[in-house]
Amino acid sequence: MKIRVGFEITHTFQQPTPMLAMLNVHPSREKDLLTSDIISASPYAPISVYTDGFGNLCSRMTAPAGDFTLRADAVVADSGEPDVYAPDAIQIPAENLPDDTLVYLLGSRYCETDRLSGLAWSLFGGVAPGWGRVQAIVDYVHHHIRFGYGFARATKSAYEAHEEGQGVCRDFAHLAVTLCRCMNIPARYATGYLGDIGVPKDPAPMDFSAWMEVYLGGRWYTFDARHNKPRIGRIVMGRGRDAADVALTNVFGPSFLKTFNVWTDEVTE
Amino acid sequence: MKIRVGFEITHTFQQPTPMLAMLNVHPSREKDLLTSDIISASPYAPISVYTDGFGNLCSRMTAPAGDFTLRADAVVADSGEPDVYAPDAIQIPAENLPDDTLVYLLGSRYCETDRLSGLAWSLFGGVAPGWGRVQAIVDYVHHHIRFGYGFARATKSAYEAHEEGQGVCRDFAHLAVTLCRCMNIPARYATGYLGDIGVPKDPAPMDFSAWMEVYLGGRWYTFDARHNKPRIGRIVMGRGRDAADVALTNVFGPSFLKTFNVWTDEVTE
Amino acid sequence: MKIRVGFEITHTFQQPTPMLAMLNVHPSREKDLLTSDIISASPYAPISVYTDGFGNLCSRMTAPAGDFTLRADAVVADSGEPDVYAPDAIQIPAENLPDDTLVYLLGSRYCETDRLSGLAWSLFGGVAPGWGRVQAIVDYVHHHIRFGYGFARATKSAYEAHEEGQGVCRDFAHLAVTLCRCMNIPARYATGYLGDIGVPKDPAPMDFSAWMEVYLGGRWYTFDARHNKPRIGRIVMGRGRDAADVALTNVFGPSFLKTFNVWTDEVTE
Amino acid sequence: MKIRVGFEITHTFQQPTPMLAMLNVHPSREKDLLTSDIISASPYAPISVYTDGFGNLCSRMTAPAGDFTLRADAVVADSGEPDVYAPDAIQIPAENLPDDTLVYLLGSRYCETDRLSGLAWSLFGGVAPGWGRVQAIVDYVHHHIRFGYGFARATKSAYEAHEEGQGVCRDFAHLAVTLCRCMNIPARYATGYLGDIGVPKDPAPMDFSAWMEVYLGGRWYTFDARHNKPRIGRIVMGRGRDAADVALTNVFGPSFLKTFNVWTDEVTE
Repeated sequence: MKIRVGFEITHTFQQPTPMLAMLNVHPSREKDLLTSDIISASPYAPISVYTDGFGNLCSRMTAPAGDFTLRADAVVADSGEPDVYAPDAIQIPAENLPDDTLVYLLGSRYCETDRLSGLAWSLFGGVAPGWGRVQAIVDYVHHHIRFGYGFARATKSAYEAHEEGQGVCRDFAHLAVTLCRCMNIPARYATGYLGDIGVPKDPAPMDFSAWMEVYLGGRWYTFDARHNKPRIGRIVMGRGRDAADVALTNVFGPSFLKTFNVWTDEVTE
Repeated sequence: MKIRVGFEITHTFQQPTPMLAMLNVHPSREKDLLTSDIISASPYAPISVYTDGFGNLCSRMTAPAGDFTLRADAVVADSGEPDVYAPDAIQIPAENLPDDTLVYLLGSRYCETDRLSGLAWSLFGGVAPGWGRVQAIVDYVHHHIRFGYGFARATKSAYEAHEEGQGVCRDFAHLAVTLCRCMNIPARYATGYLGDIGVPKDPAPMDFSAWMEVYLGGRWYTFDARHNKPRIGRIVMGRGRDAADVALTNVFGPSFLKTFNVWTDEVTE
Repeated sequence: MKIRVGFEITHTFQQPTPMLAMLNVHPSREKDLLTSDIISASPYAPISVYTDGFGNLCSRMTAPAGDFTLRADAVVADSGEPDVYAPDAIQIPAENLPDDTLVYLLGSRYCETDRLSGLAWSLFGGVAPGWGRVQAIVDYVHHHIRFGYGFARATKSAYEAHEEGQGVCRDFAHLAVTLCRCMNIPARYATGYLGDIGVPKDPAPMDFSAWMEVYLGGRWYTFDARHNKPRIGRIVMGRGRDAADVALTNVFGPSFLKTFNVWTDEVTE
Repeated sequence: MKIRVGFEITHTFQQPTPMLAMLNVHPSREKDLLTSDIISASPYAPISVYTDGFGNLCSRMTAPAGDFTLRADAVVADSGEPDVYAPDAIQIPAENLPDDTLVYLLGSRYCETDRLSGLAWSLFGGVAPGWGRVQAIVDYVHHHIRFGYGFARATKSAYEAHEEGQGVCRDFAHLAVTLCRCMNIPARYATGYLGDIGVPKDPAPMDFSAWMEVYLGGRWYTFDARHNKPRIGRIVMGRGRDAADVALTNVFGPSFLKTFNVWTDEVTE
């Protein structure tokens, strides 16, 4: 299967402003790029690229004053398989986890493990460890949080999302990640493209999506507490501890987001 | 100068429990270790060591049920010089910062840059960038927060510390770190030994200390908003984005902290 | 497309011997694992896993005395697309390369850039930079080295392979990597599964394969100097500077390789 | 003790040429910098800084055509203690070594463990593991290699240095590193300033020095096969697998080294 992905994002700046963007397809999907996903800036600005401590591709640039548009458009090869389902995947005891998974057990900006640990153990302490316990967490989050685009708030944390009972895909992911970590299951936050391949067409404007990856049985698996079913055509852009690590853009000065378009569609011809 | 440092910490566990400890002298001080700072466990438990993503030495072990004591005692060579004072150190524009300092501009578990940005710019926007701006931040934090051991709380963030106006050295550091990041100055959290060499003897029981490191003029400098003056004999153990990254111990199960002793004294003979 | 991959490798040891294995599918293909590629040891030995500085999954274990077999068998989803062909990909000037690609310009154990720089410039200095220059290097290596299983030698370097004019896929890759680096094109060594999907069946016993990845136009592309044509179903296991970084096994003591089987076939049903 | 260190290096270029420099004091000595070691370029060229995969500070710049001078001059605080002597430090079995030390057991560009393993085991297999075995290796190298500035050669490896029996400090270090690795002792190559504090004044012009660090008993210790005695005032600049990882300068084009001055002296006032 081939999927066309891309975006066009315009900010308005009052003065030249440095910014970071995490808008490339993740390096783990690089081999699948049938055409380049190079980011173009209009008006032109030089872009330099680096890899952050979590393995994500980051672009640095200084936006000029006025309107500034970033754009990319690429075709990505995909197996067409849905998210892997592995009900026998076991929970690895904390003492046997690989060293580099341990950071995904700790608290982070939007994932207050210290505040939600009691809740987590009271809800899931009685569920058998492993895939089933993660699914129980995902089910709980899926039903506890009411989805609505109006519920988005940049400072909202997992604890707050739980208290308020409403949020966007980012909040579903933060809460599920936090509850998994409380149960000693490494969990990380992922963001990227997710279209509607294989599901009814969503009338809302496309946006980037966010989901959770958990470490079970020696590898990372995808769970999506917002949709709560395996999906086809997920194309990851960034991974980290939470949204603070994988902001699509970080702007170091005042700015205004003028337009925002994302696309991800199966190429059928 | 030679400084003797060490600790003895006893937890009580109800069942065998995995734990992490960040209790070694930081690798950057390894060459100064005149005697080994190896951690001993009593009763014996095998300890394995790894380096985390921030460059800190971490020890992993499984504590048995009952009392479990970790202990180390070492002699460290030190130049005897106070924290470096460099009033001419400039603030590097965000677009010129090295890639690996950028993570220290972002929000983290206890440093909510998104919530304190307005405050930071209103207070320090009018202060010339560079060393002086950092010092203004440190002065502000030093006077705004009232120190008291009773004000410690594991979940307290920089925003909460600012609201409450009281805290311990960890809170002074978190607030100073957060305000620096809001002003686009990379700032990280550091923890380690700090005795009373060169200052009046502190009658309170010794504890580990926490402070801030900021990136100015191409390198990291130490600032200590709790004490707000250059100190002698600071021996770093861990560095990270905030206390969530450099917890001295992380215990993956219920536990009780039974005793806690720390020492750091000049060796004079 | 689904591809079944796996191996069974038996060493004989005279005494318990620590060893490292880089025998998992690379983390960048983790999402494609439809069934687990977990490594089993027979007789049983505990295996611990870590990620090395190049992003590869490494397994550590202590083999007991006697025969010791490692085995894995997994099904991997694949797009079925051949290696990407991008003749317009430009060569990025050295001063604009991302920092983390620079290590792939330097010499390494089997890639003596200092010894082959004169040759490289004399052969390829007149070829326009970019994809075409890499292809010219790959063509040169493909024709200069004569393939033969009998030409394998663990200590053979790129310089030696060039002198001798014969080698195995590892030597083709080392020489191409070295010549690219001499021309200031970042190049790394990759190893993994490569079957005969889409090409005539190879009567020789399956082995792991090795190839080159080069950094052009902002991303890494695959080139294979041994076969010199785009192939389908390449599944990477390890990446590094050369074979020293991605040895499939590293044994810290005397051993004898008793049997070695590898499979990689399209699953058709 | 305070030590003044610095250098002035002039290359001549025929055309603008990108280059890398590893000429800062190592980040692990940052806290000891009483004055800045910032590198100045003359004529002016913008310098950007990054940290490589081994933790070293690297500077990138594009040198203009003509003479191009890099210079730094700093005062560094030092404990004045000689290299640590720890005859009881044990050799950690390979299966218990921390993951991130394992890369220092493998072969590298100038350290052909595969070629020297037989020699190593025949010479040192009978020496008890631990500090004494490392000292035996260092003694062997110290006596086997004849020192002479005329014996320097950029492509010389440990194997070649052993065959030829002559070399400079870099070759002493490479050979000692290689023999340690063959015996399963992690060993890395270090370079930096080493003056003549506490020893008779050396009439030869100052140069940077190179030495070995080995991992014993849970930490890294310094050994210097060239001098073979503890020294005072060693100030590390770079660490890596061998000289290929820590070249003081890497120039991506033709150049001529015109002048080269290094200083490192105790400040006595």
